[in-house]
Amino acid sequence: MSAYKMISIPEAQDIVLSLTQPLGAVTVGLADALGRVLAEDVKAPDSLPPFPASIKDGYAVVASDGVGEFPVIGESRAGRLDDLPVRPGTVAYITTGAPVPPGADAVVQVEDTEAVQPAGGAAGERRVRINKAAKPGQDIRPVGSDITEGDLVLRAGEVVGVAEVGILATVGAVQLAVHAAPKVAVLSTGDEVVDPATRPLGQGQIRDANRAMLLAAAARAGAQVVDLGVARDAVGQLEGCLAAAIEQRADVLITSGGVSMGDRDLVKPLLERQGTIHFGRVRMKPGKPLTFATLSIAEQGGRQMMVFGLPGNPVSSFVCFNLVVLPALRKLAGWQRPELRRVAACLTSDIRLDPERPEYHRATLVWSCEPPPGTAAAATHGSSQEAAAVEGEKGLAGFQFWAVSTGNQISSRLLSARSANALLEIPCDSGVLRAGSVVSALLIDDLGLMPVPEGGVPMTPGF
Amino acid sequence: MSAYKMISIPEAQDIVLSLTQPLGAVTVGLADALGRVLAEDVKAPDSLPPFPASIKDGYAVVASDGVGEFPVIGESRAGRLDDLPVRPGTVAYITTGAPVPPGADAVVQVEDTEAVQPAGGAAGERRVRINKAAKPGQDIRPVGSDITEGDLVLRAGEVVGVAEVGILATVGAVQLAVHAAPKVAVLSTGDEVVDPATRPLGQGQIRDANRAMLLAAAARAGAQVVDLGVARDAVGQLEGCLAAAIEQRADVLITSGGVSMGDRDLVKPLLERQGTIHFGRVRMKPGKPLTFATLSIAEQGGRQMMVFGLPGNPVSSFVCFNLVVLPALRKLAGWQRPELRRVAACLTSDIRLDPERPEYHRATLVWSCEPPPGTAAAATHGSSQEAAAVEGEKGLAGFQFWAVSTGNQISSRLLSARSANALLEIPCDSGVLRAGSVVSALLIDDLGLMPVPEGGVPMTPGF
Ligand SMILES: [Mg+2]
Ligand SMILES: [Mg+2]
Repeated sequence: MSAYKMISIPEAQDIVLSLTQPLGAVTVGLADALGRVLAEDVKAPDSLPPFPASIKDGYAVVASDGVGEFPVIGESRAGRLDDLPVRPGTVAYITTGAPVPPGADAVVQVEDTEAVQPAGGAAGERRVRINKAAKPGQDIRPVGSDITEGDLVLRAGEVVGVAEVGILATVGAVQLAVHAAPKVAVLSTGDEVVDPATRPLGQGQIRDANRAMLLAAAARAGAQVVDLGVARDAVGQLEGCLAAAIEQRADVLITSGGVSMGDRDLVKPLLERQGTIHFGRVRMKPGKPLTFATLSIAEQGGRQMMVFGLPGNPVSSFVCFNLVVLPALRKLAGWQRPELRRVAACLTSDIRLDPERPEYHRATLVWSCEPPPGTAAAATHGSSQEAAAVEGEKGLAGFQFWAVSTGNQISSRLLSARSANALLEIPCDSGVLRAGSVVSALLIDDLGLMPVPEGGVPMTPGF
Repeated sequence: MSAYKMISIPEAQDIVLSLTQPLGAVTVGLADALGRVLAEDVKAPDSLPPFPASIKDGYAVVASDGVGEFPVIGESRAGRLDDLPVRPGTVAYITTGAPVPPGADAVVQVEDTEAVQPAGGAAGERRVRINKAAKPGQDIRPVGSDITEGDLVLRAGEVVGVAEVGILATVGAVQLAVHAAPKVAVLSTGDEVVDPATRPLGQGQIRDANRAMLLAAAARAGAQVVDLGVARDAVGQLEGCLAAAIEQRADVLITSGGVSMGDRDLVKPLLERQGTIHFGRVRMKPGKPLTFATLSIAEQGGRQMMVFGLPGNPVSSFVCFNLVVLPALRKLAGWQRPELRRVAACLTSDIRLDPERPEYHRATLVWSCEPPPGTAAAATHGSSQEAAAVEGEKGLAGFQFWAVSTGNQISSRLLSARSANALLEIPCDSGVLRAGSVVSALLIDDLGLMPVPEGGVPMTPGF
């Protein structure tokens, strides 16, 4: 029997996050900021626009002049401003984004004007007819109307996305304090585990799926990754790999395999000798032997290294990474809300419940008005034509997430994670949860890639 | 007046995608496969498991032997198998994942057995008591039960995610045919536009937000990016930059600025001289002057370069990138469904309609049971306590996407894209669309980062 108390995943997540502290700040250039988390507030050093700016191509005028014919006494183009005040009775040509010259207090768009042939005037004198009187301030963005000098434009703790990169450039923030990216070492274990390039397989061998997968998952989470290879089921080898992770100053070591009840499952005993195991058994399917330890590295100033001992079955490894490791990596990287996001989804097929453990069932969410074709729910939901007729009536409001199971959920079958964008939280119970039931779903992939339902999703009425 | 016919965004998207062909295949190693699109089906060269594998730590037995005491004649550990058949009346020790030895047809987990002290037997002879009879096949994964040799495990056109990396490793696919990543050159234009590092700004200057933002957006889409800097509003400079994009063999050139009606808006005339403009005006807010052209590069074998002329206002640029450029980049990269995904969301505040153009309103979607606090809808939706009581009754089914506007939507205000994960499709009309209305929303960021509602989202009942 295992010496470890069985805890729940929410308990495991709490333990891990309570022992995780955001990494310190480093400075990066703007080109490397995407996906990082700001370690400091960002303020605007100047106002935007820094000058009263025209919203249109047209003429800068004195509004009280109203309609009539006026001499064009100069030009204000974006980046090139004639040094002329606009006096009553005169106008200046102006382009979109250009500074409104002193004296002018409105812009009249070119569509509301007419060029006038100079009639006996000085050679080259330009005149224009203003056909529509302007209100003061018309088509002018006042100084600071988008951003005022000193404004806090981005807060510490915000994740830098595409728009945020633009905002940082706008305020001249080209060197940024962001949280350091965690350094993550990944190790597979097992005498049977061989490099993916191995072909044909020898007797009793299987290819190492976990290492490539976990390296990809950690990299996608923004970590700096270190590949520690495969350790045989031998104490010395495992110790050597743990030492390598320390030597490389990894913040996190992720191992897979070696945490079950077999007499060559050596990961837990090693972590017990060298650190503190905080849990070694979790009530979940898949993933029961999930193990978490911290090591205090005396020879490196007592710094902490976190170790996640994931089960060897690739699906267990995948699910445990998402549920427990990923939130920790996000918190290290500075995320303020590192947990997986939860939505509701409707089952498209019956799910047999497990009487012993709650299940994290891999599924693909689809935003649709009806269950996707080919699912059990589709069969009972009426024909596609009928549903389409109903959809026409219900419009957008009839749409919701439908969860399509990825099929056989045995923990060795990694195809059950193919195209999965969610983990359904399926309660521990006897019997069956019926198609059409609403369950909670944790998002594990970008829904920007989710399948598109037949016929698409309608737009806002009238769009 | 513009010479270009005004078209809608769906029309613009159709034109762009009809002129976009997926790039050819290149070979990448497994470590570089994440996010790429497979150009070939991937088949399994062998079965998984490749041998009948134990699901438990325990004893491999002959099921018909039933309960009783048996000699342990050998061991099968993962990766190390004694060369012994299991004959009736004998058992072998076995660990999880290890091959079931010939002769055995079931596994009895260690929990259903008892070690027996050898009573006068040969020194070192091991015996075990089997306490529970096994059914044939029990706790054995048959050969090929996860993957059968020759199975198509991933299809051409699938995007390689984290799980797919693991699947590829499992089947030994360490060199992969994937679609080439598009090469994207980014150029800003404008006499007023200066490098983001400029501090303080000179008269009439603004910092270049678009280039850093578009480079980040293209990189996030998986493109290889080339920074072409800023071109002044001068024909020669623009021509030089276009030549540089060609010289670099960019598949796509993205420019910003220079597409309005001003007399120094030089991008459209240049593209007309050197290629074909497919559209130059789109009925949308923001983004009206959006321009798309293709160039056939004679000196490079007639290859096509796509040019997107985005408006200079950073929000217009951001919105046009998402709506029109991103789907093109995805199609070039091999995506089979390159369009933005659409969901429905409930407005949390009134939106004033634009009588001239449909609007792509930036918003942050939140999965919640009630409108987020501080929004107009929250004020009319009853107190949080009441709502919480209602939520308790409604459970998961009361949850939906609420859309929180990012505020003032003027196209110069890039803060309106801060934290936006969706573009709401707001129809062109007079009046106001009320809080509580359901609108369509295009996803432009990973919902894995969306705000978490107060009190969170409940789990499946009983979980
Ligand atoms: Mg093992
Ligand atoms: Mg310009």
